[in-house]
Amino acid sequence: MEKYAVFGTGTVGQSLAARLSETGNQVVVGTRNVDATTKRSEKDNYGNPPFSAWLASHPDVELATFEQAAIRSDIIVNCTLGLASLDALKCAGEQNLNGKILIDISNPLDFSKGFPPSLIVCNTDSLAEQIQQAFPQLRVVKTLNTMSAMVMVNPQLLAGDHTVFVSGNDTNAKVIVRKMLNSFGWANNNIIELGDITTARGTEMLLPVWVRLYGALQTPMFNFHINIAQAK
Amino acid sequence: MEKYAVFGTGTVGQSLAARLSETGNQVVVGTRNVDATTKRSEKDNYGNPPFSAWLASHPDVELATFEQAAIRSDIIVNCTLGLASLDALKCAGEQNLNGKILIDISNPLDFSKGFPPSLIVCNTDSLAEQIQQAFPQLRVVKTLNTMSAMVMVNPQLLAGDHTVFVSGNDTNAKVIVRKMLNSFGWANNNIIELGDITTARGTEMLLPVWVRLYGALQTPMFNFHINIAQAK
Repeated sequence: MEKYAVFGTGTVGQSLAARLSETGNQVVVGTRNVDATTKRSEKDNYGNPPFSAWLASHPDVELATFEQAAIRSDIIVNCTLGLASLDALKCAGEQNLNGKILIDISNPLDFSKGFPPSLIVCNTDSLAEQIQQAFPQLRVVKTLNTMSAMVMVNPQLLAGDHTVFVSGNDTNAKVIVRKMLNSFGWANNNIIELGDITTARGTEMLLPVWVRLYGALQTPMFNFHINIAQAK
Repeated sequence: MEKYAVFGTGTVGQSLAARLSETGNQVVVGTRNVDATTKRSEKDNYGNPPFSAWLASHPDVELATFEQAAIRSDIIVNCTLGLASLDALKCAGEQNLNGKILIDISNPLDFSKGFPPSLIVCNTDSLAEQIQQAFPQLRVVKTLNTMSAMVMVNPQLLAGDHTVFVSGNDTNAKVIVRKMLNSFGWANNNIIELGDITTARGTEMLLPVWVRLYGALQTPMFNFHINIAQAK
């Protein structure tokens, strides 16, 4: 049992919060304005019911401000939009983040010019690195950002092997993140540790082909698998 | 039997030229300066024998200038370094390229700051698009750029399924490229057509994670596979 805060109330945040609760953890969802999030009654851009409906059907999950959610947790899962991530963490307060693990699932997608999105930051920098730099005592681990929310928390939805990448500077934090991935159903042979947090550039840069694959395949139910030659 | 020009004398060019020749095609390798390429006697940066040794062991393959190679071919395979690609095509002469198919395998890798490389162009543009824009009557198809040369021409080296992506504006050109891929051993179910040439942004942006995987796995013998949920 770990104490998790899930930042973000969209599909990714809901999926992570539900699965973390279901696997026996304490879960608080963090949002900017609890009142506004609770009162929202319209469906989201994708036709999903409002967050309050989701929350009512998940009685073990609580809703709090980013700050309160951070205070009450040991591990924070960043499921906010990439554009909003640094600001959400500032709202949480650096003193409430220091020494804790941040699992960063967000992507720096820029939809300002429509679909397909480009990236706000890439190539020589990444959102994960920007977060790590802004909060040096936060133990940032980038993972799960290369697939749809359903696949993140239920890898068995796809038959056969497929891959989840892990990037981060803190070895002990990566051990704890691996346990979370295992609890979701990720086998160790499908978890690839790429190295330090700069390797998140590579995984964030998978998004442009991901969105094109979504268009070509007409389904988000796919994932990258790294097929590695077997040693003879 | 098709008439191919392979631009570039490095590992990728050699692999493509050898395989295209072996599968029954006419192959001319194009280089900037035939004399200089032939006279080079030192090993390359990776310890491979000089091009002249490779050429001597492939008597069916000829060496010519970019211009002569283009004139004598219907399909050009760009295996030059990304930084040199546009210049190589200029050397070939636009009039010798117009109406022909260019299979673009190169990547815009920038090694100027050492390893791992970043990309010279990405996100809102790609090398493939720059080539298509510079030579509007060239039928550019981006493919095979997301894996090591050995895997490109011999997909059976990896057990199980793995993916090759295809991007391009010209439908008929993509049909011909698919036939070439089939002749190398690529099954149709492992060929994913992403769409027009702008989708090459996505596949070129796979390189940053590819180079990190190379570091983490300590072998270039791997490839991306897109694992897609089976329809129920």
